Amino acid sequence: MAYVDLNADLGESFGAYKIGADEEIIPLVSSVNIACGWHAGDPLVMGRSVKLAKEYGVSVGAHPGYPDLMGFGRRNMKVSPAEVKAYIQYQVGALSAFCKAAGVKLHHVKPHGAMYNMAGADYKLARAVAEAVAEIDDSLPLLALSGSEMVRAANEIGLPCASEVFADRNYEEDGSLRARSFPDSMITDEDECIRRILRMVNEGKITAVTGKDIDIRADSICVHGDNPKALAFVKRIRDALGNDGIGIRPF
Amino acid sequence: MAYVDLNADLGESFGAYKIGADEEIIPLVSSVNIACGWHAGDPLVMGRSVKLAKEYGVSVGAHPGYPDLMGFGRRNMKVSPAEVKAYIQYQVGALSAFCKAAGVKLHHVKPHGAMYNMAGADYKLARAVAEAVAEIDDSLPLLALSGSEMVRAANEIGLPCASEVFADRNYEEDGSLRARSFPDSMITDEDECIRRILRMVNEGKITAVTGKDIDIRADSICVHGDNPKALAFVKRIRDALGNDGIGIRPF
Amino acid sequence: MAYVDLNADLGESFGAYKIGADEEIIPLVSSVNIACGWHAGDPLVMGRSVKLAKEYGVSVGAHPGYPDLMGFGRRNMKVSPAEVKAYIQYQVGALSAFCKAAGVKLHHVKPHGAMYNMAGADYKLARAVAEAVAEIDDSLPLLALSGSEMVRAANEIGLPCASEVFADRNYEEDGSLRARSFPDSMITDEDECIRRILRMVNEGKITAVTGKDIDIRADSICVHGDNPKALAFVKRIRDALGNDGIGIRPF
Amino acid sequence: MAYVDLNADLGESFGAYKIGADEEIIPLVSSVNIACGWHAGDPLVMGRSVKLAKEYGVSVGAHPGYPDLMGFGRRNMKVSPAEVKAYIQYQVGALSAFCKAAGVKLHHVKPHGAMYNMAGADYKLARAVAEAVAEIDDSLPLLALSGSEMVRAANEIGLPCASEVFADRNYEEDGSLRARSFPDSMITDEDECIRRILRMVNEGKITAVTGKDIDIRADSICVHGDNPKALAFVKRIRDALGNDGIGIRPF
Repeated sequence: MAYVDLNADLGESFGAYKIGADEEIIPLVSSVNIACGWHAGDPLVMGRSVKLAKEYGVSVGAHPGYPDLMGFGRRNMKVSPAEVKAYIQYQVGALSAFCKAAGVKLHHVKPHGAMYNMAGADYKLARAVAEAVAEIDDSLPLLALSGSEMVRAANEIGLPCASEVFADRNYEEDGSLRARSFPDSMITDEDECIRRILRMVNEGKITAVTGKDIDIRADSICVHGDNPKALAFVKRIRDALGNDGIGIRPF
Repeated sequence: MAYVDLNADLGESFGAYKIGADEEIIPLVSSVNIACGWHAGDPLVMGRSVKLAKEYGVSVGAHPGYPDLMGFGRRNMKVSPAEVKAYIQYQVGALSAFCKAAGVKLHHVKPHGAMYNMAGADYKLARAVAEAVAEIDDSLPLLALSGSEMVRAANEIGLPCASEVFADRNYEEDGSLRARSFPDSMITDEDECIRRILRMVNEGKITAVTGKDIDIRADSICVHGDNPKALAFVKRIRDALGNDGIGIRPF
Repeated sequence: MAYVDLNADLGESFGAYKIGADEEIIPLVSSVNIACGWHAGDPLVMGRSVKLAKEYGVSVGAHPGYPDLMGFGRRNMKVSPAEVKAYIQYQVGALSAFCKAAGVKLHHVKPHGAMYNMAGADYKLARAVAEAVAEIDDSLPLLALSGSEMVRAANEIGLPCASEVFADRNYEEDGSLRARSFPDSMITDEDECIRRILRMVNEGKITAVTGKDIDIRADSICVHGDNPKALAFVKRIRDALGNDGIGIRPF
Repeated sequence: MAYVDLNADLGESFGAYKIGADEEIIPLVSSVNIACGWHAGDPLVMGRSVKLAKEYGVSVGAHPGYPDLMGFGRRNMKVSPAEVKAYIQYQVGALSAFCKAAGVKLHHVKPHGAMYNMAGADYKLARAVAEAVAEIDDSLPLLALSGSEMVRAANEIGLPCASEVFADRNYEEDGSLRARSFPDSMITDEDECIRRILRMVNEGKITAVTGKDIDIRADSICVHGDNPKALAFVKRIRDALGNDGIGIRPF
C-alpha cells in the first residue's frame, strides 16, 4: 500500500490575535508545522498547539521563520547562512522544549514562508538550514520542496529529508514552483488538482507549466485550512487518496 | 574541602550592540548564565557564548527573562504564572539547541532581573518557574536566591536547586535582599564583602541589616564583570576563597 | 441641548492579524482611539484607520500603550515617568504623521490598557502623561477616567482634558472603577446600564457599589464593538441618548 | 563663498545598549540623522538626541529604517512601496514629536541602511519615500545619494532634495556607489579622499572607478564618528574645507 503525509501549518495565533482554524484542520492531516514565535506564534500558543497535536495523534514539526512578525515571515530578508542557521536552531530548540514538556517527539523541521523559498533556491542558505538541524539531531528530518536546494543539501550531509508537493500550484520544468506573479501560478480546477496529486503520489510525475512531464517526489502534501473552501478541499483530497488506496500517515 | 560556585551573566550583546566583558569575566568563574534573546542576547550571540563557555570549561546555565529588550528585562511586568512558565520553557529550549549543537550539557536555569525578583517573592510565579524547568528535565537544577520562594517551590516539587548569594548586598532578617531604594542596600567596603562571603560559605550565616545573624545557604556567588573594578573584585574574591581553602567549581 | 461623546478603540489589527470590527463600530461613535503600533496596530493599519475615521467624520485620538504586543498592552509594566512620557510622545507623533498625510486634525490622546490604569492611579505617571501631550501641543486634549489622577494632572498643568465614563462598570466611592477581580465589577443588566448613563450625563451622578451617590463627569462614554452583542448595546445607548434629547458629538 | 553640509548618524543607542560616540561627533558636523526606534534608537534616546542637537546648534534629520533591530536595518527586506511609505511616515512622525517637545524644527529625512540603498536603486520605492515625506510636509527636504532614484523621485514630485556624497567610497560610472563586495569599494588613502571631496564640492566632478570623470552633486558629505580614527578623519575634512574657503553649514 502506498502512503503519503498531509501537512498543515498550525499555531500561528499571537497574544490577543487569533488566526487560522487549528481545531478544524488538525483532524484532517497527519502532521503539522507549528510556528515558533518569530513570524507567528507565541510561547502559550506553542504549548497549546503541541498538546492539540498530541491529542489528535498528528506528528509535530517545527516551523521556524524570519524575525518579521509584521510581515508574517513572508518577506525576503537578506540574511547570511550563519544567521539562518542560528535562527533555526533557536526556534527548533524553543519548540522542542514544549514537545519535551508534553511528552511528544519532535518529528520534523519545515522552514516557513520567505525562509522556505529562499533556502529552496539558494544552496548556501539550504546548507545552513540542513546543518542547523543536523547539529541538533542528525536523525531529525527536514521537510522541503521536492527537488529544491534544501533537499539537495540534506542529502549531501546525510540528514533525512522528506519532499513536499503542493496540490494547487503549477511547476516549472526545473521542478520549482511557478512564481505567484504569473497568472497561471495556481491551479483553480479542483478536479485537476486531485488528478495531479494522485499522479504525483503514484507515479512521481507532474506536468510542468510548459506541458512537459517532470519527476517529482511526494512524501508530503501541503494543505491549508484557512477558510471553509480550503477545508472542504482537504476533505476531497483525503477521499480521493482513500478511494485510490493511498493511506495517509506521517512520512 | 569546601567548594562554592562563582556565576556571572554572559552573552548579553544583541545584533550590532556589544555589552559586557565576556572574554574577561569567563576565566574567573565556574558557571555562566547565558541570555536567551528576550531581555538580551540573540541567536548568533547565544551560539558564540555557548562555545566560549565550552572552551573555558565553565558550566552553562540558561538565563531567561521578560520580553522587554528595551528595559533589559529589569522592569516588573504583571505576567501570569502560565505566561512565566511558557516564557521559561521557550527560552530554555532555545538555549538548549545551541548546547546540543556544541556538545555541551545544559547545567542550570537562572531567571533574570525582574523575573528573578518577582518569582523570588511570589510563590505562584516561583512554582511556575520550577514546573517550567521540571517539565523539560526534572534533573536540571534551578539557581535561585537563597531562602527565596523559588528555592521553596523547587524543593516542593523535587527539582534540584542551588542557592545563590550576593557578595555586595545587604540582607533583611527574612533573608531577602535589602531593596535598592535604601541607601544601605549595597556594601561598599570590599574587605567587609570578602569577610561576609567567607562566613556565608563556611558557616552558612550572614548578619542582616538589623544586626541579627541569619541562616543563608551559599552554593553559588553571583559576580559581575561589567567594568575593571568589578573584575578586580572578582579576582579578590577568588584569592580570598583560595587562601581560605575553598575550591571554586560548579555546584 | 446636552451633548456627549461616544468613543471606541480602532485600528488594533497587526500585519496578517485582524482584530475588531472597525467598519461596524465606526458609524456608531463620534470619536475613535487609534492604536499606535506598540500594543497593537502597525503603520499600514494606522494610515487606513485615520482615513476610515475621516470618511465617517469621526474625531481621531491617539491611543498609545506599553511596548507589549504579546500582552496587548494590558499587563502592568513598572516604567518610570520619563519612560511613559517618551513612549507617549513617540506614539502620538507617529499617529500625527498619518493625520497630517490625510489632512485630519488630531483630536485627543487616550492612553491604553495598563498605561491608562496605572497613570489613572499614580500621580507621577499621570503628570508624565499630561506633560508628554502638553509639550507636543498644549491645546491637545487628554481623554482620561473621570476623577482620575490623569484628570488632576491635566488640570494642574492647564492641559485640556475630557472625562471618560464606562457604561457597564461599577464604581467605588472614590470614583475609581470597581476592580475586575470582584464579581460585581460589571453591570450586566443593560436597562440598568442605560439608566446609569443617562444619569451620569444629565446629573453628573452615579451610585457607587456601596450604594452611595457620587459625583462623576461624563464628557465621553467608552464603548466597544468586538462582537454583535456589544454593537447592539451601542445602538441601544445611541437610541436612549437620542430619546432623552442628548446629542452625540466629539467633546 | 561655497558651503557644504557635514552629516552624521546619531542616537543609535537602545535601552541598556550604548553605541556610537554621539558627544564626540556632534561638534564636528552641521547636521545629524537621528535613528527613529526601528533599526536603532528608542524614545528616551530620541528625546536626548534631539536636545543634544539643539544644544550644539546642528540641524536635526529623521533617520527611518527597516523594522530590523537585530540586523541594525542593514539587511535588505522585500517590502512594498506602500509599506516603505507607511514605515517612513510612522518614524518621521515619531521623531517630529520630540522635535516639537524640544522646540526644534525638523530639517530633513534620510532613510537608513538597506532602505537607503534599496530606495536609491528602485524608483518605485524611491517614489514611495518621496511621497511619504511630501504628504507630511512638502517643504521638508529628503537627503539622498547624489544621482540616485530618490533624488529623481523627489525632483519629479517637487520635494526639496539634497544630494549626499561619501568621502571614502568609490563610484561607478553611473554615479552609484561601488559595491562593498569589490576590493576597491573604499578609498583608504586619506589624502586622496580629501582631494576628491574638494573636487566634488568645488567642481561637481568625481573620477569613477573606471577612470572616467562623472558629474556629482555634493550638498552634504556623510561622515562617521565610530572610532578615534574616524573622528580624526572628520577633523581633517573640516580643516581641508576651511583651508579651501568652503564653509560648513546645513544644506
